[in-house]
Amino acid sequence: MAESKQHKLWGGRFAENTHQMMERINASIDFDKRLYRQDIAGSKAHAAMLARQGVISAADEAAIQAGLDQVLAEIEAGQMAWRQSLEDIHTHVESRLAQIIGAPAGRLHTGRSRNDQVATDLRLWVLEAGRELDQALAEYQRALVALAEKHVDSIMPGYTHLQRAQPVVLAHHLLAYVEMAWRDRGRLADCLGRAAISPLGAAALAGTTFPLDPRSVAEALGFEGVFANSLDAVSDRDFAAEFIFVLGLVQVHLSRLAEELIIWSTSEFGFVTLSDAFSTGSSIMPQKKNPDAAELIRGKTGRVLGDLVGILTVLKGLPLAYNKDMQEDKEPVFDAHDTVMDCLRVMSPMLADLTVRADRLAQAVGGGFLNATELADYLAERGAPFRLAHEATGRAVRLAEAGDRGLEDLTLDELRDCCGGLAVDIDQTVYQALKPERAVDRRTSPGGTARANVERALKEARKRLWPEA
Amino acid sequence: MAESKQHKLWGGRFAENTHQMMERINASIDFDKRLYRQDIAGSKAHAAMLARQGVISAADEAAIQAGLDQVLAEIEAGQMAWRQSLEDIHTHVESRLAQIIGAPAGRLHTGRSRNDQVATDLRLWVLEAGRELDQALAEYQRALVALAEKHVDSIMPGYTHLQRAQPVVLAHHLLAYVEMAWRDRGRLADCLGRAAISPLGAAALAGTTFPLDPRSVAEALGFEGVFANSLDAVSDRDFAAEFIFVLGLVQVHLSRLAEELIIWSTSEFGFVTLSDAFSTGSSIMPQKKNPDAAELIRGKTGRVLGDLVGILTVLKGLPLAYNKDMQEDKEPVFDAHDTVMDCLRVMSPMLADLTVRADRLAQAVGGGFLNATELADYLAERGAPFRLAHEATGRAVRLAEAGDRGLEDLTLDELRDCCGGLAVDIDQTVYQALKPERAVDRRTSPGGTARANVERALKEARKRLWPEA
Amino acid sequence: MAESKQHKLWGGRFAENTHQMMERINASIDFDKRLYRQDIAGSKAHAAMLARQGVISAADEAAIQAGLDQVLAEIEAGQMAWRQSLEDIHTHVESRLAQIIGAPAGRLHTGRSRNDQVATDLRLWVLEAGRELDQALAEYQRALVALAEKHVDSIMPGYTHLQRAQPVVLAHHLLAYVEMAWRDRGRLADCLGRAAISPLGAAALAGTTFPLDPRSVAEALGFEGVFANSLDAVSDRDFAAEFIFVLGLVQVHLSRLAEELIIWSTSEFGFVTLSDAFSTGSSIMPQKKNPDAAELIRGKTGRVLGDLVGILTVLKGLPLAYNKDMQEDKEPVFDAHDTVMDCLRVMSPMLADLTVRADRLAQAVGGGFLNATELADYLAERGAPFRLAHEATGRAVRLAEAGDRGLEDLTLDELRDCCGGLAVDIDQTVYQALKPERAVDRRTSPGGTARANVERALKEARKRLWPEA
Amino acid sequence: MAESKQHKLWGGRFAENTHQMMERINASIDFDKRLYRQDIAGSKAHAAMLARQGVISAADEAAIQAGLDQVLAEIEAGQMAWRQSLEDIHTHVESRLAQIIGAPAGRLHTGRSRNDQVATDLRLWVLEAGRELDQALAEYQRALVALAEKHVDSIMPGYTHLQRAQPVVLAHHLLAYVEMAWRDRGRLADCLGRAAISPLGAAALAGTTFPLDPRSVAEALGFEGVFANSLDAVSDRDFAAEFIFVLGLVQVHLSRLAEELIIWSTSEFGFVTLSDAFSTGSSIMPQKKNPDAAELIRGKTGRVLGDLVGILTVLKGLPLAYNKDMQEDKEPVFDAHDTVMDCLRVMSPMLADLTVRADRLAQAVGGGFLNATELADYLAERGAPFRLAHEATGRAVRLAEAGDRGLEDLTLDELRDCCGGLAVDIDQTVYQALKPERAVDRRTSPGGTARANVERALKEARKRLWPEA
Repeated sequence: MAESKQHKLWGGRFAENTHQMMERINASIDFDKRLYRQDIAGSKAHAAMLARQGVISAADEAAIQAGLDQVLAEIEAGQMAWRQSLEDIHTHVESRLAQIIGAPAGRLHTGRSRNDQVATDLRLWVLEAGRELDQALAEYQRALVALAEKHVDSIMPGYTHLQRAQPVVLAHHLLAYVEMAWRDRGRLADCLGRAAISPLGAAALAGTTFPLDPRSVAEALGFEGVFANSLDAVSDRDFAAEFIFVLGLVQVHLSRLAEELIIWSTSEFGFVTLSDAFSTGSSIMPQKKNPDAAELIRGKTGRVLGDLVGILTVLKGLPLAYNKDMQEDKEPVFDAHDTVMDCLRVMSPMLADLTVRADRLAQAVGGGFLNATELADYLAERGAPFRLAHEATGRAVRLAEAGDRGLEDLTLDELRDCCGGLAVDIDQTVYQALKPERAVDRRTSPGGTARANVERALKEARKRLWPEA
Repeated sequence: MAESKQHKLWGGRFAENTHQMMERINASIDFDKRLYRQDIAGSKAHAAMLARQGVISAADEAAIQAGLDQVLAEIEAGQMAWRQSLEDIHTHVESRLAQIIGAPAGRLHTGRSRNDQVATDLRLWVLEAGRELDQALAEYQRALVALAEKHVDSIMPGYTHLQRAQPVVLAHHLLAYVEMAWRDRGRLADCLGRAAISPLGAAALAGTTFPLDPRSVAEALGFEGVFANSLDAVSDRDFAAEFIFVLGLVQVHLSRLAEELIIWSTSEFGFVTLSDAFSTGSSIMPQKKNPDAAELIRGKTGRVLGDLVGILTVLKGLPLAYNKDMQEDKEPVFDAHDTVMDCLRVMSPMLADLTVRADRLAQAVGGGFLNATELADYLAERGAPFRLAHEATGRAVRLAEAGDRGLEDLTLDELRDCCGGLAVDIDQTVYQALKPERAVDRRTSPGGTARANVERALKEARKRLWPEA
Repeated sequence: MAESKQHKLWGGRFAENTHQMMERINASIDFDKRLYRQDIAGSKAHAAMLARQGVISAADEAAIQAGLDQVLAEIEAGQMAWRQSLEDIHTHVESRLAQIIGAPAGRLHTGRSRNDQVATDLRLWVLEAGRELDQALAEYQRALVALAEKHVDSIMPGYTHLQRAQPVVLAHHLLAYVEMAWRDRGRLADCLGRAAISPLGAAALAGTTFPLDPRSVAEALGFEGVFANSLDAVSDRDFAAEFIFVLGLVQVHLSRLAEELIIWSTSEFGFVTLSDAFSTGSSIMPQKKNPDAAELIRGKTGRVLGDLVGILTVLKGLPLAYNKDMQEDKEPVFDAHDTVMDCLRVMSPMLADLTVRADRLAQAVGGGFLNATELADYLAERGAPFRLAHEATGRAVRLAEAGDRGLEDLTLDELRDCCGGLAVDIDQTVYQALKPERAVDRRTSPGGTARANVERALKEARKRLWPEA
Repeated sequence: MAESKQHKLWGGRFAENTHQMMERINASIDFDKRLYRQDIAGSKAHAAMLARQGVISAADEAAIQAGLDQVLAEIEAGQMAWRQSLEDIHTHVESRLAQIIGAPAGRLHTGRSRNDQVATDLRLWVLEAGRELDQALAEYQRALVALAEKHVDSIMPGYTHLQRAQPVVLAHHLLAYVEMAWRDRGRLADCLGRAAISPLGAAALAGTTFPLDPRSVAEALGFEGVFANSLDAVSDRDFAAEFIFVLGLVQVHLSRLAEELIIWSTSEFGFVTLSDAFSTGSSIMPQKKNPDAAELIRGKTGRVLGDLVGILTVLKGLPLAYNKDMQEDKEPVFDAHDTVMDCLRVMSPMLADLTVRADRLAQAVGGGFLNATELADYLAERGAPFRLAHEATGRAVRLAEAGDRGLEDLTLDELRDCCGGLAVDIDQTVYQALKPERAVDRRTSPGGTARANVERALKEARKRLWPEA
């Protein structure tokens, strides 16, 4: 097609048209049209600066601004005709602008290249997406805290190795996920700080001969700083990789909670019941109520890690400056972001809708020798070296297990027998020590699961997460 | 929406409707509608078997077959209204069938579950996609061979470490990629052999009480075998991971050729000129002619490796049998396949369109001491231990380099001087040995670059790749 | 150190010594010494061929063979002094050989390069390691089958989405893992077939001028074929990537079983008890018995997938022929192999030592409406369209659940009520249909969980896995 | 071995010994002995706090401190007998302590678990390793700046798509890598800030009943903060994943520079000559001088990305709190760190040793129409819309290329002819505009390649990187 060459921004040197498959693999418009707002905002800021610097006339600028506004309106009204032959969002915007305002459109690209333009667009997109992500993380934290506030008194088994370890309160468990999300938000903020550097003004790779003022453009677009080296500006995709990594850890955290929800909603654990709104059934087994949402969240970790591997593989061994390989930066960024946002937006209401089965938690706390550490601590507090106390308790556990009893069911004599050789006085107070409530409430060391601790942590979380309240 | 629950295949047990975000994350219809042909083919084979086995009546089967044909026709005519509330392709097909034929539609799903159904669909898709991939690989091999046939006499530097090493012929170099593609095709065939096992009949996970005949269904659908264990049948996605791995190695091979094309088309190497049809220009630098297609092929390696990591991460630690995480199997399979197919379909015509600059190859062969091994071999053949011959040649290289000469420019005395202590007789024949044509043609060891070898290899390749000719 | 340059196989051209950090990063001897047997075997075969072809004298060959035998003996006796300055295993062997036999050692490397030598060594190693892996997989299958043979009558809940789905027998569940291992062994055999191609004779990259006979060397070393293209022979690492992929899927399968063992050995499931020999305790909680082995197997999936990503990333975008990047091929191969072998060698005896709690399985089968599908099938067999039968059963499940009963506890009237509108006759036989043994045994469709099926499958497995018996 | 059970910290509950393969897979001592300094420092701080809080006596504390000092000294003197049966570094230290001081050793572990202990050790290690990494990055930046300072006047082709684009100065190019390293150091500092949170005091998972003061321990160990939630404290490995990601991007940056060094040191580019100290030769080709160090740096990107995938895969889907899978955190951290440190320590002196071939740079600048943008800018400055100026220049390039000339070799008439229709006045000044020095020096836009800019940037870099000077 003659059209193909003619519409490109670079046809002059070329004698032949672009091959159809080349056009298909080369065009990015299918996914980079998502950057239309950022692209137009960048062009408007660039045009204003060009006029301020006297590079283009006020009249040209006015035409360009009005024209770009119209292009924006047309795109938002669904009136843009997207075409692979027009390669990318930049070409679509500029060629439509030319149709609307004629010659002055040709001056917009002065002192600019698609190399710095596309980097600007994607950074603007990441900054905006990052702010949304931060909001979604806060929403998720609020869902966790709201649930936790209802479960300060819900004692459950704490697990290590998925074996019952020591009793904890459910609120404490949920607050662990709130902590992960704080770290995620911290990482995100650091990442966005590094993303907020404008590359506009680097031109193709070497800077430009036009008297640009990149700093004012950066400010107009909401960037915090401006690039220091033009070659770096157009070839840097660190911000994309870092953003995907941040998303990757968020997703890993979600996958851990998802795994717990899946396990907790088995018949065997039975700790929680997911609402119908977040479950699905089976086309063949009428009784089934499946935790699909949690499974999908767990499974989608694969694609986010895949996106991370993708972008890092693209960057490996790339010489300076811009290379077309970098066009492969956008889809993993978009995919990772969309995936994590969807998962957060499912997880938060799913938590709000969760039914906790306090009866099952209490029942579980009763079995599995969760109070064995209490016995060892009891002995250690009475002067036994901890290692020996630990061994004695091990013997007690074996004795109790053999009779299908709990430690609290052993007689004083039996307990004393197990502790033979420790020279420790065991009396009736040991049975107090073995109660789960006491086990929880005595863990008052900072950050421990004692209910007093947890209530304090919840108060702080509420203050931090509902600042307006 | 009340609609939501009502249209699902599993609403009976559920009191509440599905949450909107849940519907969004849960629905696979956006991507699994691509399986419509496979899904309908599977249903038709299942229905035929149910009738043969007497599970449904001939009349019901007839209605189902006609109805499914109509659904297929409607989809191909673009008349299906895709809805997220209908979850997936299976539900769309079956619910449309129910609208068309009424009650008998409800009998189609007898003895079947979406668990074995979706595994069947995806396997059928992979088998078909794999056959296309094999064709595209053959096409790519033919493009390589066709180019190679023109360049049996094009002597170029062979490289190791990207340093000039020994002269080779370009045809020999290109045939190395043909070898890689043979391995790719072998791996693909092995993979498809394992994919060609029908899981239909495993039902939800445990088999079924209906007297099914899975083998006849498998045969009708073109499978080579049938599953041995129902739990395995519905939870196995090895074939998807293996298919993506096969695609990954194809893409890695393409990335190696792409890297070479990029390097060869630099001003500095100048070995090849890509046609305009597979290049692009710059919006700011009018002289640029960029090897975008090759760069994209190299860059897209990232996404295929990402797809591989994605699927393997999904499968890690999944308990039996089906889990919803497995819904994340389709997109990486589709993406990896589409990517590799696009890259092959660009690479093949790009090779056909390539201009090789024989003058630049010849010029490059003249520099860089490519004949140093010849000198060492010359000395070794005359009785010097190879290690000492190697050292002597090293001395000759340093002497020549210092004077900006080639080895062939050294005098006999200089050469003898470098070989002092070797007790080897050096005469005029050494200059014959230093010629690149001779260097190439003496490498007659099997698989070596001698032109006689290469011609033989090309003949075999042609016989194998154009069998009809 | 003057030593540094002097001991290298390539010092002649070089004026300066190697930098200390360069020596450190460059040397591969720390890990490639593991290839000493393969390296020496390759050299012996090469020397024999050189003598057969008349390239070296019989006397030289005899000296080389004897010398290499001595080097091998010294290494196995721990007498080799490994030094980073000697770079790699090839240099160590050859320089020790030179010390032992003097001048003839210099002729061993005739017509060979380290490029084809190292590829030969690694392929030989993979072939051997692959055979060991196959044995370990067979051992693992035998452990699964031996356990399964004891549990044909152990009915347990089959799960999908980790929700109880339909009753299955434990033997059937274990046989699913046997199936995965068959596929693993098939993939391995295919991979080894491709690895069994000898690259020896490709020399540096272009073949050689010496009249080598690569085919006879290949045969002597146990290869199945010989390379077709010298450039490909020295730059191909497909076999390494494919071997790691095969290992990766084995490990993914092990991770699935490991996850199940972890879940099954929780207090809540309680289906199995791991023996003390495969558990560990806690330094603080005396009651703990943790499934560490299973957790490690699950966790080690990370490193094997990391090895796979590593090798593929190395190969991405590498131009022909050999590049030093390829030195990064060995460690991921070794690490992935060692990891998977360790995991198999732990898993097999752990399975042999496993205590299955049949009482807990039976108890679990009693809850969770595992027989709901039976009710739906019962209705469908009596003429109800499956969709409607499914909905009616859903209503019955909700009714029973509300009263904390099982389906088998509903009265006939209640059941009929739920099925109102189906026009199906429900009688006392329904209670028969709801029994788990019957649910299992009626699943006689091929590959289904009926005990008759499972016994047949076990018999076949035994025949295939204990062929000598 | 009876020894096996007896030496464990948790033997009490166990009747059987550990299986030999279990011991092998379970033991971490082979790699975690590297944490001995951190482990002992942590124990000393813990003991001091226990005494301050009155949990242990002053006498016990004194004995513990002296004993730990002795253990440290013994390990550093190579006197510790490492044994797999003693599992890990914690057990080795504590059991040796018990041999030295007897009973009081048993009190050290009070209020502590290996779960918080190992997390503390690894965090301390990462903090220390991170500080070393920061120093190595600064050293690398200094090497880049020192080289750049010598090459402000070395004009070379700037590349995009590896095609000559516009002239830049080599110093500018090198400073792009300095920028990347600044970002790396920023990311590292952020990561270390998050790593500097002490988990000690979380005990097994729930806090402890002993009146610990975790904050004072954190301060004594140099942490910046203390954990907020005990469950999170023992199950968080974000810091490890983030550290590996930071290392991964450093390595990706190094791989880009390595790729350039490899390409620049080809015969064809010939821009640089690596010193002998960082090159190697060939065992077969006497002329070869290979950029092995650069290739290894590029190749090692694979293993670091593999380490990243490894740790993230381990964490995916792990329920709270500690699971043994997490033992797989250390090796990827160590491997990624060692790899990147080695690569930095090779790259820096390699840069210092690099010979830049100014003649080859100048020659390269002369070809390839690097001044085409200058012509387009010249026309745009005289009033032509940039798009049309670009097209006219494209025509001029094609005209010049056809005659194997440069743009500067076209006559004024020819140039005017190419620009027909632009209504722009072209005169002799155009030839000034086409000179590369002028092209460079006119790129004075901030961050551009004008020598004045570059000198300013170098001055700032020197001030920042040699603060003491």
